[in-house]
Amino acid sequence: MNITILFGGSSFEHEISIVSAITLKKVLKNATLSFIFIDANREFYLVEAQNMKSNHFSTGAYKKDKKLILQKGDFFTSGMFGLKELNVGTVLNLIHGRDGEDGKVASLLEFNKIAYISPRVDASVLSYNKLYTKLYAESLGVKVVPYEVLNVNDSREITLEYPVIIKPVRLGSSIGVSIVKSADGLDYALDVAFEFDNQVLIEPFIEGVLEYNQAGCKTSDFELSIVEEPNKEEFLDFEKKYLDFSRDGKVTDADISLELKTDIQDAFKKVYANIFEGALIRCDFFVVDGEVLLNEINPIPGSMANYLFEDFEGMIGRLIGHLPKEATIKIDYSYINSIQSAKGGKRQ
Amino acid sequence: MNITILFGGSSFEHEISIVSAITLKKVLKNATLSFIFIDANREFYLVEAQNMKSNHFSTGAYKKDKKLILQKGDFFTSGMFGLKELNVGTVLNLIHGRDGEDGKVASLLEFNKIAYISPRVDASVLSYNKLYTKLYAESLGVKVVPYEVLNVNDSREITLEYPVIIKPVRLGSSIGVSIVKSADGLDYALDVAFEFDNQVLIEPFIEGVLEYNQAGCKTSDFELSIVEEPNKEEFLDFEKKYLDFSRDGKVTDADISLELKTDIQDAFKKVYANIFEGALIRCDFFVVDGEVLLNEINPIPGSMANYLFEDFEGMIGRLIGHLPKEATIKIDYSYINSIQSAKGGKRQ
Repeated sequence: MNITILFGGSSFEHEISIVSAITLKKVLKNATLSFIFIDANREFYLVEAQNMKSNHFSTGAYKKDKKLILQKGDFFTSGMFGLKELNVGTVLNLIHGRDGEDGKVASLLEFNKIAYISPRVDASVLSYNKLYTKLYAESLGVKVVPYEVLNVNDSREITLEYPVIIKPVRLGSSIGVSIVKSADGLDYALDVAFEFDNQVLIEPFIEGVLEYNQAGCKTSDFELSIVEEPNKEEFLDFEKKYLDFSRDGKVTDADISLELKTDIQDAFKKVYANIFEGALIRCDFFVVDGEVLLNEINPIPGSMANYLFEDFEGMIGRLIGHLPKEATIKIDYSYINSIQSAKGGKRQ
Repeated sequence: MNITILFGGSSFEHEISIVSAITLKKVLKNATLSFIFIDANREFYLVEAQNMKSNHFSTGAYKKDKKLILQKGDFFTSGMFGLKELNVGTVLNLIHGRDGEDGKVASLLEFNKIAYISPRVDASVLSYNKLYTKLYAESLGVKVVPYEVLNVNDSREITLEYPVIIKPVRLGSSIGVSIVKSADGLDYALDVAFEFDNQVLIEPFIEGVLEYNQAGCKTSDFELSIVEEPNKEEFLDFEKKYLDFSRDGKVTDADISLELKTDIQDAFKKVYANIFEGALIRCDFFVVDGEVLLNEINPIPGSMANYLFEDFEGMIGRLIGHLPKEATIKIDYSYINSIQSAKGGKRQ
């Protein structure tokens, strides 16, 4: 199993991507692993396994690593004798936030015909943007947490009752997110959120809401993780999430009824089906009055939510065997040819 | 004004993209133009202006042109003395269908920090997929033509009354589209549509519906085209659309009330605002019982709908002056540094 972990990126979550990658190096014990780092300037570097330590990046030491060029079919090093192919095998897109989750890295790999584990371009766009996630889920009959949307130039009036939670539509890891307990705090929280995006979501903040995470992917059939009941704090701020991304210990299955578990799994499958093939995602659900509501989709969860699976490495192998194939489009110039022959072939 | 027309692509609409590019060469009279062709195999070629004739591509003659490499900031030729920068200026994405309209080309250009005229990644995904377009438009309060969705494995039952029109969700130029007049014809039409996509839209086919096209973009303010009443045939098949893509003659403003025109323009602005900045798009509307319904968004209209504008070339210049800028993300490794200092800086 030849896997290349692609991490870093021009993203607010650049550092947690590094932590995720270091964690996956520990977790994927049997695979042949390579590591490609995208730095803040979007240069590609080939990082040796023994250099997969966070200070290799924070000190800038990575700049002495080999630079890579992305071309059709592979990444390449450039040397005296031209380009040398790296043989990346399957690329695992582990870039959290911009570049990785917004569809750009999926596009680069798809365009260059490189096999990859990641949401495809459309699934990325729908899950990276929390508003589009809601529209998508509602269209599937999956219930979502109620919401309002404000654009940066809208008048700052909301109809939801306080407390509310304010989120930039397009960022993960709780960046720019605030809980607002009364109208006094709204302006400041919106200022913070609009620092990161020109559109924000406002949702009711439900104290002590039941929250469950379900991860999984589709190989020959769905492979679902245990259902996790995450840490019950108000919400995880960036630093806590950061530490969370280095998890590799196993957690225990949530103590819930079989019925609720089935509802959560059904909602996960509906969200995943048809567009997330090739990806391992985590969906975060709330349960309110017995009803399962989709909170967020994590298209590239921290350290790939490895700690939620019994046989994470085996599943990654099976996923590699079930990556979606891009449809072949044959271009035969039949229209141009027929038009040219109608014109006597003399003109363009 | 230094513009590079990017055309071709691995797309069912590859040939009409060539026709569009040849048309733009005629229309953009004062700009310094370069032409980059993406062939069926996704190789980039630099095409000299005098070779911008359809048989240069259909005969494979383009394969003798210079190959290009896309890297940070520009396209490059590769020669004896290493890479030579092309200086593409602003790239105009003129690839219809896959690659161009699905977000991949936007991703390649954005990732590599090249200025470009095109919908951005998210706007591409929302407009390339006709179902997502409906969800997006409805969320803005823009009315759409009613619809049902069928996935390839769903039972083939529909509730809409005949006649209906069947469309693959993700293709342009009427490819795979059929009108079905009674239940007898449904199966065959679905077979055709599912050849091209695993999801199809079914809409009522409204005989003689009033149809109007509105194109435009946003520079310092909105610049809207005249409202066009397109050719009234049942629908344009691929060959007719193909010819349509080479249009460069002017058309006349539709003879409609000021009120209807304002409604169409308002709907266009709602659809465009916030996500289509940097693009020139065309929206196709139906008017039923006086109500304006969005039919489709053309994120990269044929020959950029140049024939709908009084001052097309001037507007392109102004659009280049108003392309959206990607937000800068500063990566300072503050979290890694703070964790390392908490650990005494000794461990990863």
